[in-house]
Amino acid sequence: MRTEYCGQLNLSHVGQQVTLCGWVNRRRDLGSLIFIDMRDREGIVQVFFDPDRQEAFNLASELRNEFCIQITGTVRARDEKNKNSDMPTGEIEVFATDLVIINRSEPLPLDSNHENSEEARLKYRYLDLRRPDMANRLKARAKITSFVRRFMDDNGFLDIETPMLTKATPEGARDYLVPSRVHKGKFYALPQSPQLFKQLLMMSGFDRYYQIVKCFRDEDLRADRQPEFTQIDVETSFMTAPQVREKMERLVRELWLDVKGVELGDFPQMTFAEAMRRYGSDKPDLRNPMELVDVADLLKEVEFKVFSGPANDAKGRVAALRVPGGATLSRKQIDEYGKFIEIYGAKGLAYIKVNERANGLEGIQSPVAKFLTAEIVEAILARTGAADGDMIFFGADNAAVVSDALGALRLKLGRDLNITEEGRWAPLWVIDFPMFEDNGEGGLTAMHHPFTAPKDMTPEELKNLPETAIANAYDMVINGYEVGGGSVRIHNSQMQQTVFSILGINEQEQREKFGFLLDALKYGTPPHAGLAFGLDRLVMLLTGTDNIRDVIAFPKTTAAACLMTEAPSFANPAGLAELGIQVVKKEKPASEEMPEND
Amino acid sequence: MRTEYCGQLNLSHVGQQVTLCGWVNRRRDLGSLIFIDMRDREGIVQVFFDPDRQEAFNLASELRNEFCIQITGTVRARDEKNKNSDMPTGEIEVFATDLVIINRSEPLPLDSNHENSEEARLKYRYLDLRRPDMANRLKARAKITSFVRRFMDDNGFLDIETPMLTKATPEGARDYLVPSRVHKGKFYALPQSPQLFKQLLMMSGFDRYYQIVKCFRDEDLRADRQPEFTQIDVETSFMTAPQVREKMERLVRELWLDVKGVELGDFPQMTFAEAMRRYGSDKPDLRNPMELVDVADLLKEVEFKVFSGPANDAKGRVAALRVPGGATLSRKQIDEYGKFIEIYGAKGLAYIKVNERANGLEGIQSPVAKFLTAEIVEAILARTGAADGDMIFFGADNAAVVSDALGALRLKLGRDLNITEEGRWAPLWVIDFPMFEDNGEGGLTAMHHPFTAPKDMTPEELKNLPETAIANAYDMVINGYEVGGGSVRIHNSQMQQTVFSILGINEQEQREKFGFLLDALKYGTPPHAGLAFGLDRLVMLLTGTDNIRDVIAFPKTTAAACLMTEAPSFANPAGLAELGIQVVKKEKPASEEMPEND
Repeated sequence: MRTEYCGQLNLSHVGQQVTLCGWVNRRRDLGSLIFIDMRDREGIVQVFFDPDRQEAFNLASELRNEFCIQITGTVRARDEKNKNSDMPTGEIEVFATDLVIINRSEPLPLDSNHENSEEARLKYRYLDLRRPDMANRLKARAKITSFVRRFMDDNGFLDIETPMLTKATPEGARDYLVPSRVHKGKFYALPQSPQLFKQLLMMSGFDRYYQIVKCFRDEDLRADRQPEFTQIDVETSFMTAPQVREKMERLVRELWLDVKGVELGDFPQMTFAEAMRRYGSDKPDLRNPMELVDVADLLKEVEFKVFSGPANDAKGRVAALRVPGGATLSRKQIDEYGKFIEIYGAKGLAYIKVNERANGLEGIQSPVAKFLTAEIVEAILARTGAADGDMIFFGADNAAVVSDALGALRLKLGRDLNITEEGRWAPLWVIDFPMFEDNGEGGLTAMHHPFTAPKDMTPEELKNLPETAIANAYDMVINGYEVGGGSVRIHNSQMQQTVFSILGINEQEQREKFGFLLDALKYGTPPHAGLAFGLDRLVMLLTGTDNIRDVIAFPKTTAAACLMTEAPSFANPAGLAELGIQVVKKEKPASEEMPEND
Repeated sequence: MRTEYCGQLNLSHVGQQVTLCGWVNRRRDLGSLIFIDMRDREGIVQVFFDPDRQEAFNLASELRNEFCIQITGTVRARDEKNKNSDMPTGEIEVFATDLVIINRSEPLPLDSNHENSEEARLKYRYLDLRRPDMANRLKARAKITSFVRRFMDDNGFLDIETPMLTKATPEGARDYLVPSRVHKGKFYALPQSPQLFKQLLMMSGFDRYYQIVKCFRDEDLRADRQPEFTQIDVETSFMTAPQVREKMERLVRELWLDVKGVELGDFPQMTFAEAMRRYGSDKPDLRNPMELVDVADLLKEVEFKVFSGPANDAKGRVAALRVPGGATLSRKQIDEYGKFIEIYGAKGLAYIKVNERANGLEGIQSPVAKFLTAEIVEAILARTGAADGDMIFFGADNAAVVSDALGALRLKLGRDLNITEEGRWAPLWVIDFPMFEDNGEGGLTAMHHPFTAPKDMTPEELKNLPETAIANAYDMVINGYEVGGGSVRIHNSQMQQTVFSILGINEQEQREKFGFLLDALKYGTPPHAGLAFGLDRLVMLLTGTDNIRDVIAFPKTTAAACLMTEAPSFANPAGLAELGIQVVKKEKPASEEMPEND
């Protein structure tokens, strides 16, 4: 029905007869001529109708925005004065000799020129996706997945599908359950990741696996989370952690080169401990040059308990953050930053403002300076490298609170004061994570997942010193976002049982939940390691949006609803009876009333 | 950790030092030498240990089947007399100088040399997948999906993901439901297909879409069905049905050429009516040359009511199936075929056996001949082309029963008597399906789905004559299997509402279930058409298996259970309470007891 796409016409087509299919993007009626901007997937071209071709001209007068049409006409070069350099097709136009109105359109409920509420955009998603910036993101996503697949195929990875109807796993976040009709009273779980299946594929000998696969988490959603998300899931046998990282880094470097034309270079590596110390985060944004500096050793003896308490506590931390040019911050702004860090559990924000200094501490402005000696202040200034016009913020509390609060403050100040170099790319690997972290109930929880191998430890050593064990795990971080994470896996039954025990899973539970894994580990399991990328996150970075819904064709709201189809909905009670379940509690969510539609 | 794959070594590697990782496939201890067949993803190579390299030799004596090992050694050409032409690596062997036992193995619960029960194979799936014939199927599947993706990418189709957590649809088979935690008492449905989402993407202007996507059906499973299956899902705008078929046919032709080296040629087209008439099936296996022949006109006047009843009934059918060489069938065999067609509702199997004919009807053997005149018998023989040694079977009943029964009998006889040419490929398109079929309750149901457009009819015409309406739908059939099906979709709101009305969906229901679709159709919807292939079925055909579980890494049983992970399982009652549901009925399935594991 078409010979060309609108958006692909150029001077090489001049003189040719073309047939185009698409939509009226805009219409201008100049009386003697009718102009329309005609849009299709590839872009927009100007089409005009002349009264000499009366039938087409008359029909064109009926055109309105978003009518679906087919035109046949001749491509002409525009006069020099009518060329439009803002349009890729701006050097030509099409003189339409025939017009077919394929389908008319009512006026759109979305305004194409103004901002629409996200609610309206989600309700009329099929119209919102007509906007070129939205369509281009999904086109970029398709290009990215295609690039990734070709890379993986060309590197000997096999695309193998794993099940969606799986057994519930005890991983942190919650499973979506699916009632079984055949086995009434029993449930499948939608996978949070294909973790165990991909490990089993290594045990089968497939050697290199990948899959671009939907995963699910029924958790409280944040702005950048969706109940279903897509992973680029990878697993390898007989490869070391550095080899896995090298290959995955090459994938990402080639992807950035292909999509953005940017050479990312070698990714630096940083241990978890160093990242927390210097950036207060395990996913540091290295575009921001500010760093946390530990000063506890300088403050052990001061009378100011807010500093000396944590400075003398093995689990405490006292750190300073120098803000270049931060002396311009007003009292009000400082108070706001103080409020901001309360989100992270910090109790207050001590600071030293370094105005123009004359003699000694003259020019130093600080509510805490009075508790400190001049030597200590000078030592802090020296260690942080503070110059005139800078600000130093302090965090003093238990280590986690200080890292979280100053880490978040660092990011916020980086944005607010334009210190972060937004225009560049800063990738890195964070490695050497702890195996376990406190679960807040006196026990331990796996920092990565329970199938991650420790670095250089026997099961006995791990059992004796779980708190200090380092996992052979790694995260890929770009511009402060964790885009991927993985680890070397346990390939030994005794080690796997030791980790389960440390996590408080007793032997009976181990058999019930992971019997098949423990069995499988007995039959010559190869050493294996892998990684998973968050595809949505990669596409967000590559298309320059921080709204995850912009890179998903039909996303859910933060209340996990689809405003277009009105899912979820009430089920037929007879259908539920067949599943052997019934609804015992209906709640209307406060945030989002939905019509009872079934 | 390796320099080469075992299975890729050949004479070009002779003299090279290589490092291999893999499994002990078999071990032979000749006292003075130890030989092992070492296996990895790419194949098997012979490795030997010599007492001269004492450390490796001693360690090798500990090797047992399925130990995971790493060896380093030198590739050597085998003596002429030791060459093994059955093995791709049979011209060489590796003299191992170093051996690392990476992981030991207990004796396998599956016997690698003998047939295991499918139950055992599914329970130890990770071991069953080590068998080269199983592994090769999954490798072929990865190759096939990769080929399909490249074809679609190269033809301008965009890979766009659609949601897994969707709204329940009223399509024939049942939805898997997923309870919502945020919206207690409401449910998502897992998609039976992305049908409406792909249509909405066309309304958004994406023009060409594809996705290789999991779909779900909670129905009684047959041997060749799985609760989750994979579709190659395709949709296009501004393309006619013949254009869609041409492109999809080209994909399949190129796929067959790539995977099998076979040129399928142009696919013939056949209407649904012709397929039912000649083959009693809408997915005829054209490798089988037998055809049904209508003979009702010859039998209207006979006194034998079994024939004359259906012959004079507008909804009846009387057809004959000539079986070349079928005169050799014994009475017992004929009785068995009679039983076989009872499955399809037939009440008996009349026949005429054509032995060597002398004069007139001499040599004709038939329990029904006595009800027929000689002229009628001769006319039947002439019309069916029966020769000496043939058998003619009859079906006489309502048309559906005759077509089903003789259609199934035709397939069975084709296999039993080696009439079907198993070695060749017989693709075709079946087109011009009826829009609707009787739903058995006095109403109509959509033969394809309710979004399929009729051929050349206005909404008014359709409303008046729904029973005779022809759908613009098409199925691709290969060797008697429906590998894909699709249609031109309705792109007009009034037509869509007309179809819903004919299906007995009243206006309120239309709004509740499909309001978003009816809305979307108002805004300049383009003409669009598409198709979906069953990927599992394509892989089955291309890898020569008729067991769908052979082409899926981790399949379910026909009772929709995973014998390896023991899914589905009982859920935590507290978790169910959070979802606002409770179990009211637990049933132990009779066919398959599963341990209560949660």
